[in-house]
Amino acid sequence: MRILGIDPGYGIVGFGVIDYENGEYKVIDYGVIETPKEESIPVRLAMIYDAIKQLIETYKPEQMAVEELFYFKNQTTIIPVAEARGIILLAGIHSCGEIFEYTPLQIKQALTGNGRAEKAQVQYMVTAILGLEKIPKPDDAADALAVAITHANFNQSLI
Amino acid sequence: MRILGIDPGYGIVGFGVIDYENGEYKVIDYGVIETPKEESIPVRLAMIYDAIKQLIETYKPEQMAVEELFYFKNQTTIIPVAEARGIILLAGIHSCGEIFEYTPLQIKQALTGNGRAEKAQVQYMVTAILGLEKIPKPDDAADALAVAITHANFNQSLI
Repeated sequence: MRILGIDPGYGIVGFGVIDYENGEYKVIDYGVIETPKEESIPVRLAMIYDAIKQLIETYKPEQMAVEELFYFKNQTTIIPVAEARGIILLAGIHSCGEIFEYTPLQIKQALTGNGRAEKAQVQYMVTAILGLEKIPKPDDAADALAVAITHANFNQSLI
Repeated sequence: MRILGIDPGYGIVGFGVIDYENGEYKVIDYGVIETPKEESIPVRLAMIYDAIKQLIETYKPEQMAVEELFYFKNQTTIIPVAEARGIILLAGIHSCGEIFEYTPLQIKQALTGNGRAEKAQVQYMVTAILGLEKIPKPDDAADALAVAITHANFNQSLI
């Protein structure tokens, strides 16, 4: 099963594409979509929509998993990040079908067994599980791979 | 000039379509888009996208004005509302071109001259400016008409 994992944002969107078959993980691609600061938010949102559709067209994932936003006090960027996340969900619905959503706690739990794990521990586990030589960079791409792995884990437990 | 005003939401989206020519306002239509609670957020977002595109196709507005979200403490619905707002901006970019955004303060200021006006005062002014017999219902539709009027006012001052 091919899974596209997404770490939402409006300046940087992380993505990770993995194949998961018979308990084996294989990385297909990972990276980030970046949008230019000079452009208006609506234009940047449209760029994200196009880029996600392009990713889905290129890699043809069967399922898509998107990290849920965690709302914390005085988080002034929450509005544009959530606007971008809406766009990402829409691009998924339009191109990929059903979408799965995981909270940061579920992702940490799935990767490390500890819902309060540090970012470095999660990144270490992403690297180990996927058999990579080094930690995927930037962080947004590693986070996106973590979401994809989380979905594979949840999906496995449903079989 | 035909203007589509939008009051964003994910359960209820208000819309208002007005024509503004030579200082005269004319209401074309107003109302709400509602999405069913039973559906998932991604599905509801896709419904909003389709409904906004349909509105633009039906009324062919030349410009679109969308209320900005106001972030306040402990506002737990801010994330899905912002996700829906992202979808609305995208539908606008895809179908209507440039999008204009106004804060609640700008809207209250434009309608009543007072950025801290009460909702009832704004609704009274919407009714008076548009020459309606009664206050447009529901509130979301009245709010959307207020955004459209605000855009007409700002646009006028630019001529």
